[in-house]
Amino acid sequence: MQVYLNGRYLDHTQATIPVDDRGFLFADGVYEVVRIYGGRPFLMEPHLRRLRAGLAALHITDTLVDGLAGVAERLIRDNGVAEDGTVYMQVTRGVAPRRHAFPDPVVEPTAYVLARPFQQYPDEYFENGVAAIAVPDTRWTRCDIKSIALLPNVLANQQAHQAGAFEALFIKDGVLIEGSHSNLFGVLDGTLMTYPSCNYILSGITRALVLEMARELDIPSAQAPIPWDRIDDVEELFLSGTTTEVMPLSHLDGRVIGNAGRGPITARLQQAYRDRVDATKLSGARG
Amino acid sequence: MQVYLNGRYLDHTQATIPVDDRGFLFADGVYEVVRIYGGRPFLMEPHLRRLRAGLAALHITDTLVDGLAGVAERLIRDNGVAEDGTVYMQVTRGVAPRRHAFPDPVVEPTAYVLARPFQQYPDEYFENGVAAIAVPDTRWTRCDIKSIALLPNVLANQQAHQAGAFEALFIKDGVLIEGSHSNLFGVLDGTLMTYPSCNYILSGITRALVLEMARELDIPSAQAPIPWDRIDDVEELFLSGTTTEVMPLSHLDGRVIGNAGRGPITARLQQAYRDRVDATKLSGARG
Repeated sequence: MQVYLNGRYLDHTQATIPVDDRGFLFADGVYEVVRIYGGRPFLMEPHLRRLRAGLAALHITDTLVDGLAGVAERLIRDNGVAEDGTVYMQVTRGVAPRRHAFPDPVVEPTAYVLARPFQQYPDEYFENGVAAIAVPDTRWTRCDIKSIALLPNVLANQQAHQAGAFEALFIKDGVLIEGSHSNLFGVLDGTLMTYPSCNYILSGITRALVLEMARELDIPSAQAPIPWDRIDDVEELFLSGTTTEVMPLSHLDGRVIGNAGRGPITARLQQAYRDRVDATKLSGARG
Repeated sequence: MQVYLNGRYLDHTQATIPVDDRGFLFADGVYEVVRIYGGRPFLMEPHLRRLRAGLAALHITDTLVDGLAGVAERLIRDNGVAEDGTVYMQVTRGVAPRRHAFPDPVVEPTAYVLARPFQQYPDEYFENGVAAIAVPDTRWTRCDIKSIALLPNVLANQQAHQAGAFEALFIKDGVLIEGSHSNLFGVLDGTLMTYPSCNYILSGITRALVLEMARELDIPSAQAPIPWDRIDDVEELFLSGTTTEVMPLSHLDGRVIGNAGRGPITARLQQAYRDRVDATKLSGARG
């Protein structure tokens, strides 16, 4: 499988970075995961916009982002990702002798891109829902930056994995925040709710799409947190994300959520999501 | 310069890791920096104990830690680090296709060790003190783990650097916590104070030594936070750390601290630290 690393296309097994890369020493970088449907990137532009925003937050130059859509297209083609897949893109501050402050003079950022097939989660996950656990939110206060400093997410996700659950949901100050690698939506009193866009969550591309689809479908929605002490009143819960798509939660910490399956609002949003995906595939077939 | 990487000794410029290393993708690892004085590691044992504790917190096997003191000795010798230097040691969960949860089956951890000369900070820093700025503590809530997820520390340290300051001090809930790469001590009403050992700070090896030396010198001390609203009453402030040693702070956010230089308790602790270092050097000369 071919990958892209700093201007070169090379075999994945040959792709290595110096130990002095600040991605390895300091988690000093950001990343994106873009979905591929029918061999075409889905919502590439908003992902690249968020990547630029993350680089700006880290004061890393973003000029290389201009070329990344083209890099992804080439990797998709060269690796024969004709159907489902993902593009992984990571940019770090680059290679320099270790010290906390930025290298001076500035060094070239490291850019790494991988495109590979993705095995969609089983249909039953989307139809019957999956389980989640709740964990304390141990993360930093700039979760709006999609940084590679993912250790808290790794530890939470592993906790879910060991509990036989699909996802770990972070709780902070008595409210549900988001998942370790997905955003969270709930339906409470008929209103679709998700934690407000701010520094405590990643402003998910799929999350934004869900909010947009909800408006189109006239589903009342609010950017407001779901309080933990109202968890038994929640009618529906679902995750959103690039690989997670719109994924119902049937159980949380062993509690049954709603009717223990896919709720009606979740189902409508899943269908709307599927329609968007089909349109992407069609545009690919035309193109 | 020779470095150690996964059982091999090789030139620093040849030391590379696969892009799938979880240190690069997830900041899924821990590190230590050990000081070398007179060509001998200083306080290696407590550093290795903390490394083991960090690996345990991350559920990474620590068997490779047994060999690291020997690796450090060899690198010190091979690289001719006869005087001042540092040993950098980093262990990550290893190399595996990207997914948040731990690789299953477990993979071999990645171990990287570097020993190089260190240019001591100028004498005037230790005599007259350095400046610091105060920044909000954006970090995660497991700062007791010396993880490589250092992005918040990098951003804070860079802010200090740009302000012409030596260090950035994190503030949380109205109290001073610690620096971006050092612990913080203050003298208030004649008592030496430092933030208590807990999940909000790194339990520094030099910090523990300072507390031990304070006991020996009959300096009253307390593990208690320094409130921001008492900053004008603080008699002395200093940083502690492996490369920072015992470093007086003369200014904080432009405010003058104490007598704008090295306070008497700081000076006594610096001398006690120097005595410890000299003892290490002597033991090396004997050995």
